[in-house]
Amino acid sequence: MRYSQSGVEYGALDAFKRACQQAAATTAGMLAQHGLNEPQNVRGESAYLLETSDAFWAHVEEGLGTKNLVADAMGKLTGQRYYKNIGIDTVATIVNDMITCGALPISVAMHAAVGESNWFDDLQRSSDLAAGFAEGCRRAGAVWGGGETPALAGIVEPNGMVLAGSAMGRVMPKSNHIVGQVRDGDAIVLLASSGVHTNGLSLCRAIAEKLPQGYLTELPSGRAYGQALLDESIIYVDFLRACQRNQLQPHYAAHITGHGWRKLMRLSEPWVYWMTNPIPPDGIPEIFQFICASGPVDQVEAWGTFNMGAGFAAYVDATDAERCIQIAKAAGYSAWVGGRVRKEGTRKAVVIEPLHIEFEGESLRVR
Amino acid sequence: MRYSQSGVEYGALDAFKRACQQAAATTAGMLAQHGLNEPQNVRGESAYLLETSDAFWAHVEEGLGTKNLVADAMGKLTGQRYYKNIGIDTVATIVNDMITCGALPISVAMHAAVGESNWFDDLQRSSDLAAGFAEGCRRAGAVWGGGETPALAGIVEPNGMVLAGSAMGRVMPKSNHIVGQVRDGDAIVLLASSGVHTNGLSLCRAIAEKLPQGYLTELPSGRAYGQALLDESIIYVDFLRACQRNQLQPHYAAHITGHGWRKLMRLSEPWVYWMTNPIPPDGIPEIFQFICASGPVDQVEAWGTFNMGAGFAAYVDATDAERCIQIAKAAGYSAWVGGRVRKEGTRKAVVIEPLHIEFEGESLRVR
Repeated sequence: MRYSQSGVEYGALDAFKRACQQAAATTAGMLAQHGLNEPQNVRGESAYLLETSDAFWAHVEEGLGTKNLVADAMGKLTGQRYYKNIGIDTVATIVNDMITCGALPISVAMHAAVGESNWFDDLQRSSDLAAGFAEGCRRAGAVWGGGETPALAGIVEPNGMVLAGSAMGRVMPKSNHIVGQVRDGDAIVLLASSGVHTNGLSLCRAIAEKLPQGYLTELPSGRAYGQALLDESIIYVDFLRACQRNQLQPHYAAHITGHGWRKLMRLSEPWVYWMTNPIPPDGIPEIFQFICASGPVDQVEAWGTFNMGAGFAAYVDATDAERCIQIAKAAGYSAWVGGRVRKEGTRKAVVIEPLHIEFEGESLRVR
Repeated sequence: MRYSQSGVEYGALDAFKRACQQAAATTAGMLAQHGLNEPQNVRGESAYLLETSDAFWAHVEEGLGTKNLVADAMGKLTGQRYYKNIGIDTVATIVNDMITCGALPISVAMHAAVGESNWFDDLQRSSDLAAGFAEGCRRAGAVWGGGETPALAGIVEPNGMVLAGSAMGRVMPKSNHIVGQVRDGDAIVLLASSGVHTNGLSLCRAIAEKLPQGYLTELPSGRAYGQALLDESIIYVDFLRACQRNQLQPHYAAHITGHGWRKLMRLSEPWVYWMTNPIPPDGIPEIFQFICASGPVDQVEAWGTFNMGAGFAAYVDATDAERCIQIAKAAGYSAWVGGRVRKEGTRKAVVIEPLHIEFEGESLRVR
């Protein structure tokens, strides 16, 4: 099975994104009247930045995707509610984007659009969602600063909810700015994920539809497929905070979400990201092994769609690699050196060496 | 007809909003580690604020609502595209919220969630939307700083699009902060709207379904009902900028959107907003007269749902009222004194005197 079969065709979407980026670039002149600048090359990065005299202010808009459909389906099957995790996940996907530029999130706003306002009649589910969003904010060290909850009949499906939001954050001092200047030989430190996080859920749902037991299919561990899909995302903010406290400055950072490991080559410049050690110390999480076997989903599709056990990447000087791992571990994360940055002329690619997977630059068009 | 019949029941929604505000309040302690504060009473206002040494930074998350469904329906009827206006409207609803605290928007991000990525196959419509969003940003004096365009099959209707976004802005110097301290006798200066803007569209759509000619029903001016509904929203940022330039400091400001004129009593404190002159100098826009006659929608419902020709309110010292109007006019807005703030003990209400309409405080529960 392929991700594009599950209804998400990145081609048309990415064309619109590029049209937006071109239109957006025409507004850059508006900053002068505010006495502000945007840093070079910020367009196409995961967070937008404004430069003031003493800081960069960061702005991110992001969405959960379709993970809450799994929570809804599992809710019907088990009678349990899973919206606390969904709330955490929504914050996670926003703030994990923000930290890639070196900004710590300060305020996060929720956008929860429903098709019918009776979505909120299940008071426990509503309250779980609110509690989860607040818990996500606390884990991110951010305040929950408002939001919006429209009822959009005719746009959102009757029992559906679009979960998204935005964050405002800050890089201070400015020297903490993660500029995106990698060097030949830089180590790529990977931080373990807890599972699918918020990406590739459309494909995961399509697989559930094929399985005779659906979301209740047992994984080798005995857990239900749907339960494992709903594991809450890891929030990586404490990793960045610990790096800053220890004055370890990544040259670049990537939140491994849409486009899976192709996201490792988000930078414009041509580099080859040579991954020699893609497998987490504890092995590929069973949820991904199950997905690959059940789809079936081939390895190229899987690594080009999912995080496969690595949710965040920090590109650091090779001499900092071991220290970076120790900092991550002390902050509570599982981390390992997954590979290194290589110069190969004008080639831009992600190579996952032990798996013989090569993603060339044109497979990731986000600018 | 009543707004609640059109599928939007504020009761359940508002209960969730209050649950969110309570959960959000538990995260306030997160600001200390950033060396930041939030101003008193910012919760429940239209923009969230963070205080730094030299400025307040503002964060708003907002959505368009269902206005694009009218654009879709009119597109089918006439073959024309209306998404440039829709793009402008999306920015308008975000930035008009932001300026109520005295912040000028600096960056605006778009969230456009579709049910199917083939929404973007109509390249002209996509390009109109992007152009409109950029135009809205320019009118707001803001840069378009990123966004998100997910495909959410199973959550968003197949041909639907949820349009929303966020803004980051700044109050600088801090003395420009609109605190919300009105005084007995303050004048309420109203700024004209261009029509429904982005509020109450569910009811407008329900009316179209009842009309034999639907959106093509002619208004007295000869324009089609659907065409008039799609008039682009007015962006009031230049009004605030002109006030700041002329050192006229409003005591409070309100963006008249959801809950219509009830929004005039958004402040917690008990005041009576005594509106003696609710009608714009050019009269109530014909779109509202048509809606009231065609629903029919009674006056209480209409003024409690729509802006009725006044999209923004600035509460100023009575001695500043005339100057405020001149500033607004010089900046290109139609403005007039609509009424005044009165102290009546613990009563909180909006009174529209010539129409014998009184909205008591409990009819607006947004905190």
